[in-house]
Amino acid sequence: MEVGQIRLNKATQEWVIYAPSRRQRPQDFQQKSQEKQPLANQVEHCPFCAVNEEKLGSIILEMPNKQQSSWQIRVIPNKFPALTPQENTQRSTKGIYLAMPGYGKHEVVIESPDHHQTIARMSKAEIEILIETYHQRYIALMQDPGNMMVIIFRNHGKGAGASLHHPHSQIIATGIVPRYRRWQEEEAQRYFDQWGRCVYCDILAFEMGDRRRVIEENSSFVAFVPFAAEVPCEIWIVPKQHQGDFGSITEQEKSDFASILKNALAKLDEKLNNPDYNYVINTAARYKAEEPQIHWYCQIRPRLTTPAGFEIGSGMSINPSIPEIDAEFLNK
Amino acid sequence: MEVGQIRLNKATQEWVIYAPSRRQRPQDFQQKSQEKQPLANQVEHCPFCAVNEEKLGSIILEMPNKQQSSWQIRVIPNKFPALTPQENTQRSTKGIYLAMPGYGKHEVVIESPDHHQTIARMSKAEIEILIETYHQRYIALMQDPGNMMVIIFRNHGKGAGASLHHPHSQIIATGIVPRYRRWQEEEAQRYFDQWGRCVYCDILAFEMGDRRRVIEENSSFVAFVPFAAEVPCEIWIVPKQHQGDFGSITEQEKSDFASILKNALAKLDEKLNNPDYNYVINTAARYKAEEPQIHWYCQIRPRLTTPAGFEIGSGMSINPSIPEIDAEFLNK
Repeated sequence: MEVGQIRLNKATQEWVIYAPSRRQRPQDFQQKSQEKQPLANQVEHCPFCAVNEEKLGSIILEMPNKQQSSWQIRVIPNKFPALTPQENTQRSTKGIYLAMPGYGKHEVVIESPDHHQTIARMSKAEIEILIETYHQRYIALMQDPGNMMVIIFRNHGKGAGASLHHPHSQIIATGIVPRYRRWQEEEAQRYFDQWGRCVYCDILAFEMGDRRRVIEENSSFVAFVPFAAEVPCEIWIVPKQHQGDFGSITEQEKSDFASILKNALAKLDEKLNNPDYNYVINTAARYKAEEPQIHWYCQIRPRLTTPAGFEIGSGMSINPSIPEIDAEFLNK
Repeated sequence: MEVGQIRLNKATQEWVIYAPSRRQRPQDFQQKSQEKQPLANQVEHCPFCAVNEEKLGSIILEMPNKQQSSWQIRVIPNKFPALTPQENTQRSTKGIYLAMPGYGKHEVVIESPDHHQTIARMSKAEIEILIETYHQRYIALMQDPGNMMVIIFRNHGKGAGASLHHPHSQIIATGIVPRYRRWQEEEAQRYFDQWGRCVYCDILAFEMGDRRRVIEENSSFVAFVPFAAEVPCEIWIVPKQHQGDFGSITEQEKSDFASILKNALAKLDEKLNNPDYNYVINTAARYKAEEPQIHWYCQIRPRLTTPAGFEIGSGMSINPSIPEIDAEFLNK
């Protein structure tokens, strides 16, 4: 496999991942040819469907269905990984620049044997198995001290970056903590040093009192449109108990997370007609899990708008909706 | 006009702009209806074309063509502004949160009377008038002490966020400097404090020696694919003379900028078959223009890939190409 690379932007201190197995020749990017590619929608060409099972390769984890008769969820290595475990995290200079090998792990979670299933329409029991899968893989990946950060995410629809129709999530473990995450940690640290409290706990307490942006609350989680949502109908799902690390989730919380995630996605599905979306579980980087200012949460972002030049230059989002109106709309 | 608002994300300290005049009801975002909207491609419905001139409203600036017989470029207020000048920058608390009115200015630069023109195909003389227009509006907007930052940008094609086909750029003046910009300033400041030099000057000197990523060099500018480009075929155009502020550009530099910008966009147009792209002029925020670590540059980003859940969670980009290969491809 071609050696990957991660490079540091010398001006901004942001790492950028160069993915050799995803590498395309620049001419492959020609607009016209790209527009012709549809999402692989046919079962016979789907690498995750049973008809192509013999080509699947290694299986990292398999979860049986409730009847134990077959598999419900499978975790496999990504065939086109952004990062690969053969490498290490040794930095080197390239002239005036810093670079390192493309170390990491990239897994795919096949969420269902059913090619046309979506989380919004799964049973709660099926989503519980998905959360259990996330948890088991998260724990396993964090056991390797080379993995500094594990990101669990889902791309739904072509506009959200999905390249396959079959329902799946992805898990990437990186050997670095990016500048963006450090900045979030620093802001939370600053707040904690000022107020002596976790900023996410304070946000949660306020939202549970205010209620204008709350979508749902159960015994362990609150789902709400954040006060400064960057995109229309953005939803955060935050554990009520202070918890820095997704790995610390309890059995009760797994069940409650499955239920509130299903309901949030079902609302988006129903009200916005199956929109493209991403979700990501933001959780503590290695060594930060026990710090009192870190609080994991799941961030759901429908892809209803297109960030453009202003966003690239300023880093600020322009949101054409307003969080209170979005919450009212989703709750109707 | 409905009052706009800017809100601070309490956890990350990022401002988010809520754009009242762009506001849509959440149900307007339904995927299916959105997919039906094409880019307004017909002259008879184009608000920037001569046939609809009487509906244009006020004109902020008009540049004549070389023959002085008609207009070449017009600057008008954006009819659907993200920010509006009626407001002020007074912060207020909303419960535990901070917010402020949607103060700012949002202008549209109509780049040509010709509906189907593109910068890549304009004459150098026409682009010189465009740069002169940018410069005049930049100087005028920065004269208002309420404007903390002026962002000049261009969205080309629907995938880059353009909503109209007629060639145009946009200029937004904000009353705030976002966290993202402050972070870039801080990193440049740290480098200057360490090395006693501007990091952008050092990058430029290295690239001019290395040459593997250089696309073009003229007497005032270098165009190159940055070492840690976040997207395939990203190009930076950087002034060779240290210059923090786009407002300080000289007559010679305007001419050289027009020429190198044209060539860079023409290369993308030719090699990638008229791709969607954004460009943005990153220049000093108010009070920073004279500081030795700030260096303005123009950043061109073709929209060939789709950032997804991993990018949202980590802030890191995954680039499926590699800068040296992109530069070679563009130079072929």
